[in-house]
Amino acid sequence: MRVLVIHGPNLNLLGEREPDVYGTETLDEIDTRLRALARELNVELQCVQHNAEGAIIDELHSARDSYDAIVINPGAYTHYSYAIADAIAALRIPVVEAHLSNIAARETFRRTSVLAPVCRGTIAGFGAQSYALALRGAAALVKR
Amino acid sequence: MRVLVIHGPNLNLLGEREPDVYGTETLDEIDTRLRALARELNVELQCVQHNAEGAIIDELHSARDSYDAIVINPGAYTHYSYAIADAIAALRIPVVEAHLSNIAARETFRRTSVLAPVCRGTIAGFGAQSYALALRGAAALVKR
Amino acid sequence: MRVLVIHGPNLNLLGEREPDVYGTETLDEIDTRLRALARELNVELQCVQHNAEGAIIDELHSARDSYDAIVINPGAYTHYSYAIADAIAALRIPVVEAHLSNIAARETFRRTSVLAPVCRGTIAGFGAQSYALALRGAAALVKR
Amino acid sequence: MRVLVIHGPNLNLLGEREPDVYGTETLDEIDTRLRALARELNVELQCVQHNAEGAIIDELHSARDSYDAIVINPGAYTHYSYAIADAIAALRIPVVEAHLSNIAARETFRRTSVLAPVCRGTIAGFGAQSYALALRGAAALVKR
Amino acid sequence: MRVLVIHGPNLNLLGEREPDVYGTETLDEIDTRLRALARELNVELQCVQHNAEGAIIDELHSARDSYDAIVINPGAYTHYSYAIADAIAALRIPVVEAHLSNIAARETFRRTSVLAPVCRGTIAGFGAQSYALALRGAAALVKR
Amino acid sequence: MRVLVIHGPNLNLLGEREPDVYGTETLDEIDTRLRALARELNVELQCVQHNAEGAIIDELHSARDSYDAIVINPGAYTHYSYAIADAIAALRIPVVEAHLSNIAARETFRRTSVLAPVCRGTIAGFGAQSYALALRGAAALVKR
Amino acid sequence: MRVLVIHGPNLNLLGEREPDVYGTETLDEIDTRLRALARELNVELQCVQHNAEGAIIDELHSARDSYDAIVINPGAYTHYSYAIADAIAALRIPVVEAHLSNIAARETFRRTSVLAPVCRGTIAGFGAQSYALALRGAAALVKR
Amino acid sequence: MRVLVIHGPNLNLLGEREPDVYGTETLDEIDTRLRALARELNVELQCVQHNAEGAIIDELHSARDSYDAIVINPGAYTHYSYAIADAIAALRIPVVEAHLSNIAARETFRRTSVLAPVCRGTIAGFGAQSYALALRGAAALVKR
Amino acid sequence: MRVLVIHGPNLNLLGEREPDVYGTETLDEIDTRLRALARELNVELQCVQHNAEGAIIDELHSARDSYDAIVINPGAYTHYSYAIADAIAALRIPVVEAHLSNIAARETFRRTSVLAPVCRGTIAGFGAQSYALALRGAAALVKR
Amino acid sequence: MRVLVIHGPNLNLLGEREPDVYGTETLDEIDTRLRALARELNVELQCVQHNAEGAIIDELHSARDSYDAIVINPGAYTHYSYAIADAIAALRIPVVEAHLSNIAARETFRRTSVLAPVCRGTIAGFGAQSYALALRGAAALVKR
Amino acid sequence: MRVLVIHGPNLNLLGEREPDVYGTETLDEIDTRLRALARELNVELQCVQHNAEGAIIDELHSARDSYDAIVINPGAYTHYSYAIADAIAALRIPVVEAHLSNIAARETFRRTSVLAPVCRGTIAGFGAQSYALALRGAAALVKR
Amino acid sequence: MRVLVIHGPNLNLLGEREPDVYGTETLDEIDTRLRALARELNVELQCVQHNAEGAIIDELHSARDSYDAIVINPGAYTHYSYAIADAIAALRIPVVEAHLSNIAARETFRRTSVLAPVCRGTIAGFGAQSYALALRGAAALVKR
Repeated sequence: MRVLVIHGPNLNLLGEREPDVYGTETLDEIDTRLRALARELNVELQCVQHNAEGAIIDELHSARDSYDAIVINPGAYTHYSYAIADAIAALRIPVVEAHLSNIAARETFRRTSVLAPVCRGTIAGFGAQSYALALRGAAALVKR
Repeated sequence: MRVLVIHGPNLNLLGEREPDVYGTETLDEIDTRLRALARELNVELQCVQHNAEGAIIDELHSARDSYDAIVINPGAYTHYSYAIADAIAALRIPVVEAHLSNIAARETFRRTSVLAPVCRGTIAGFGAQSYALALRGAAALVKR
Repeated sequence: MRVLVIHGPNLNLLGEREPDVYGTETLDEIDTRLRALARELNVELQCVQHNAEGAIIDELHSARDSYDAIVINPGAYTHYSYAIADAIAALRIPVVEAHLSNIAARETFRRTSVLAPVCRGTIAGFGAQSYALALRGAAALVKR
Repeated sequence: MRVLVIHGPNLNLLGEREPDVYGTETLDEIDTRLRALARELNVELQCVQHNAEGAIIDELHSARDSYDAIVINPGAYTHYSYAIADAIAALRIPVVEAHLSNIAARETFRRTSVLAPVCRGTIAGFGAQSYALALRGAAALVKR
Repeated sequence: MRVLVIHGPNLNLLGEREPDVYGTETLDEIDTRLRALARELNVELQCVQHNAEGAIIDELHSARDSYDAIVINPGAYTHYSYAIADAIAALRIPVVEAHLSNIAARETFRRTSVLAPVCRGTIAGFGAQSYALALRGAAALVKR
Repeated sequence: MRVLVIHGPNLNLLGEREPDVYGTETLDEIDTRLRALARELNVELQCVQHNAEGAIIDELHSARDSYDAIVINPGAYTHYSYAIADAIAALRIPVVEAHLSNIAARETFRRTSVLAPVCRGTIAGFGAQSYALALRGAAALVKR
Repeated sequence: MRVLVIHGPNLNLLGEREPDVYGTETLDEIDTRLRALARELNVELQCVQHNAEGAIIDELHSARDSYDAIVINPGAYTHYSYAIADAIAALRIPVVEAHLSNIAARETFRRTSVLAPVCRGTIAGFGAQSYALALRGAAALVKR
Repeated sequence: MRVLVIHGPNLNLLGEREPDVYGTETLDEIDTRLRALARELNVELQCVQHNAEGAIIDELHSARDSYDAIVINPGAYTHYSYAIADAIAALRIPVVEAHLSNIAARETFRRTSVLAPVCRGTIAGFGAQSYALALRGAAALVKR
Repeated sequence: MRVLVIHGPNLNLLGEREPDVYGTETLDEIDTRLRALARELNVELQCVQHNAEGAIIDELHSARDSYDAIVINPGAYTHYSYAIADAIAALRIPVVEAHLSNIAARETFRRTSVLAPVCRGTIAGFGAQSYALALRGAAALVKR
Repeated sequence: MRVLVIHGPNLNLLGEREPDVYGTETLDEIDTRLRALARELNVELQCVQHNAEGAIIDELHSARDSYDAIVINPGAYTHYSYAIADAIAALRIPVVEAHLSNIAARETFRRTSVLAPVCRGTIAGFGAQSYALALRGAAALVKR
Repeated sequence: MRVLVIHGPNLNLLGEREPDVYGTETLDEIDTRLRALARELNVELQCVQHNAEGAIIDELHSARDSYDAIVINPGAYTHYSYAIADAIAALRIPVVEAHLSNIAARETFRRTSVLAPVCRGTIAGFGAQSYALALRGAAALVKR
Repeated sequence: MRVLVIHGPNLNLLGEREPDVYGTETLDEIDTRLRALARELNVELQCVQHNAEGAIIDELHSARDSYDAIVINPGAYTHYSYAIADAIAALRIPVVEAHLSNIAARETFRRTSVLAPVCRGTIAGFGAQSYALALRGAAALVKR
């Protein structure tokens, strides 16, 4: 089973950016831990990060024949990128939305996800563990 | 570690109620599988189901000294029970909200959770696996 | 044919509560007249009243194998109980919503019914006769 | 007792138009069955159909001295014709609003009735039986 | 003069729950102080606490012939329980709404009270003293 | 303890203006009764009335060093005067908002108070007694 | 100077319809008095009444070469007939909107006029005198 | 008959301020013409202008025993001064709202009048002639 | 192939009405040019114009067996006539909505089309050419 | 005449993505057919596709001196890209918006186009033929 | 060049009021520093402070012939005083709106400025430096 | 002190695009004048322009260790780019938002800035001078 993890905008700053909201772990450390879990679950894992909406769309397009599932933390694009939503809707493989923080407990605009209706599942609020849960969830959806 | 799982209103009908939305597994089958995972994670697990809002509030109150974390699928109370929200806010242990279906892809009223802001994390859309992921997530939050 | 009539919150006060809105007949008198009509229509009738949302949900659950149709006057739960709505949606038998008063001519909040979308039909504004019409309507839906 | 039944816009197409929503019975067949019920209830019945808002207003005006009650299926005018609402408000006889389908379970715009506040009662969701129930309801309101 | 005090959901946790919002006094301590004031005002006082909406409705119903006034802190039901509002509207004795905290200075949803329009008066923001003021206010309304 | 009572716009007409809403007592009679209560509570009381928003702001400014608490009935300014709200927020002494009528049971615009979030407590619906309760409440807040 | 007065839907019932809102004068009596004023103002007056939106549009079209100004009481079409608004916007002569009652003090929907932005002036709340004032106002606009 | 005309904020700049919206006539010229009409109608006329909301409220209060009717052009206070609205509601004499421009054809915020519901009639869009029509309208209301 | 073109309200004034918005061509000139194109496309064309909503509904009804497609410029009915929308939804032949102007660049109310969801395609902003494009589009939809 | 066709995000997947919404033709096939039509109309045609908002803005900028008109299918950017709207507004050549599907009949968010107000015309709902009609429309606008 | 600086309501409390929001400098200290800058820029400066809306309007009126530009910090009037907005719109000289704090980062109601549309420019968030920047900006607008 | 100026989408067209809104100066001319001011203020200045949202995010990220402050004119991204807002929130240096035009006096959508809450200050409406004021403001914030 192959899974692609897409980290969205500003996540390259993890560990450095608002650490009380997002934790002190860097993206590299998160990816390393995630790869360990992937091996345990027998999943081939690829992790990428993009700040640009267009690059995320391109990534989603090219993933459609190469992966069995996608985990995406769309960052702020969660709340307005109908273009990414259309790209997800065009895929036939399951996509899982993951958020580090509990977005429901933050600013009002973070309560609306334009991506959630086209994703298969959502995980939010577990810090870096959100990725681990999302990876397990994605694997479960593929096996169904 | 002790974890309480609260199944909210109408979940006693699982397996029978709208199976294309909620799956064909019964609540008993889900609880059995969940208990197996709990043993594996070294978690003492208790599962209850209530249709009444007041009974869920009572359950949350009495849990505050006996459990380390709570997993709750609040069913339709998710969308309007500020009384349950206040009961959760009064707890000091982490509470994780779990939903079988991807509520973001259903009726508009299901997109608002009045409980999410007082829960620590949210899991939605993985069918019965949502409970397993929520249990893992709750355990991770306790260990932090 | 068996039909269950569920009277919701505050309807036990009928005859006494705001008589210019709800009339002077008591719930017992209404049920007596309704039973007479039921006999005429060859319907086995059961009438219950509950103030508690959870009790109404329990009643709906246990009705699913014992009745052919349900007439419900959900009182104020009409306007916010998504939990009752989910319980109705889980039934396969027709449910008819009945209101004594013309709720469209009263306070704004009474114009929204969260139950109507999952009921099969609605009757409002005929005083105690609303129940009689709802019973006839429910019978007609069963026979269809 | 004399009752006027007004069928609003597009109801002349009944039986032919979206049969899964509105049924396969034609307006003539409905009127015939309704007249049979009227005889049984000792009601003198007149049935008319109009596509034009102005014609419905004229009909309501001329009915005010000739009928004891009116049953109206206002079709789509339900949702915006304040002019028909004013015409109904100007009558002293009871008016009952009837809908074939359960309008609460359809498009959002169908959930608002600008006529309901000036009608005495509402019946919706029983197919052609909605007219029969409305006729009985209207008769009950006259007798009160 | 007889007055009933109804404490709503989660108030049994007073002293323990979010003490910076609700203070450190327990419900028992508050009731004790309130009974002292009642004696001074020559009022026969009864205090009850319920987490369940249905239980509060039952309490209000049975109070209608036994008390001269009611003081209610409806907790979170303040914001959505139209069923309790209907129960209050059905009473002929004055009902006073009391809140410990200044609900206008908290979350947005706490600014709407669906009960206030059917209560006679409102007191908010004085901590445990809100009950004392509400008792005095209720007594004054009875004497008018 | 020194307390300032500020009567806002149109309150000089009390007794004369819409007596079924505001009662028949004049402002002078209310102030006289309030001064008696103040003596009983050992409070030095000053009462003023202003129709102009600017004059109320000036009064609040000059009160900040001379009084221990303020009771204000802001009349219609309650609903839109952010300038008065800023003036209250600039004070360090407690301010209590008092209303004669139950504003929640009147026109929609009266349900929003832009002042409540910066006041410490609110009293509404007890007629002239609202001032007495507000004075007691203000005194209690000072003593805390 | 030639002026056309258009009475909209339901105004043929004047004197008979809700007399506490619209007065006891009939449309004929109003027109007679208006013609007297017209003679005094040296205005050639024509009065028509239509219940149908389409007929009002036709009337407005044919008026464009025959009259110097129009007074229109659009009745309930005031609130939704963008088609009449377009017909008025297509005229080069001034159009004055007249209402018998003070529409701002009635139901919410009556506070929106989709015609006012394309009319030149508005008169409301003077009963039958609204027409007289509108006629004077129209004459003044023509003379400007 | 005595009538008071109150010109609201910024009307002292008439003739100078945005002449394409408000015309080139000064307030003095308007008042002179209005006094001529008053003599013709046998009305004793007083005209005042105030920029301050509080001053307008004072003026309305002191007018209540000295005038038979009031014509007010409330300027921008039209759209938010609930305090002036309360002052008008406290009067027993008829108040007529007059606007020079057709406020319905301007910025959105000008379409809401918080004063209109408590005024008896409204005149808008006739330039300086709006005052003349309002004076005639006020006189007609007094004579009724 | 037979196509019906329905011109809605006020379009009979084309060439004369607001020429900077709608152009200087008359409806006759447009129809003549359209018939030329129809011949070229081998389409039998019929053009009608109606100001009345009811007449447009009648036209749509009678078209259902005589035409292969309909082009409609519904004028202002676009924005509120749910009755016309229902008539279109009742047809099985494709209906194309055409607008001369770019309605998205005009008043806010013109941005909502209640007809668009039941039409097959929309053309707007090409002046009289909108009809030619709509005719070609309708022909293409029939051929599909 | 030179025309640029810009295909927006996700349109590179045409033929493969949700074929019941967007058809089975690929973008290459569409472009080929469009080029044939362009030759027939004597138009020099250039077709590009971009997933990135910034790339579309760049394309629009560089087109301003090289083309006589632009046809754009902005995909999901239609609904939120004010940056593309500003780029279009900065052009002096006509821009035509084209959509394959009838966006008015799909999700609510697709009913708002932030680009339409700055485009000259809109075509929607004709599948791949939308481009052909848009090309003809653009050509007509250039020739005007 | 002559510039008038108007400080709005509550700004007389600067240095004392909520110092973490507004800084510790007093209004006098700010004015002194501003006058130094004015001398440097060769600007004749006048500074006034008013709590009353009417006084600000009067000040704006009398400034229209005596100053070349105005800098105004309208305090809370920013958010609702359409009367001040009309006074500014009536001026021909440029008006610059200045705010000490970044109002966009505070309460929701502070995000709406009813004055900004009639001002020429806005400065916010630089503390006392906002006035200096506004003075420079006003001078630049005069020189243009 | 080092300051980065980021010009957002479409600003490369300055001088050419809608000159009555944005002026006739080109971006190069603006940057030249700004560099002169920077030298005067002893500021090391860097100016960049990007049409792509992702490029602006990258620029902000790389600026966090190289600059003391940022001036950004986010163009249309101001109104929806939560991704840029998150990038700004992740910085510790002050960011100042600058707009050439007075965005409050333009289309409604331009009145909402999703960036303002995370910027430190805002300057709008001074044409090219907005940049100069923003540079001064940024310098003042750094020095504080």
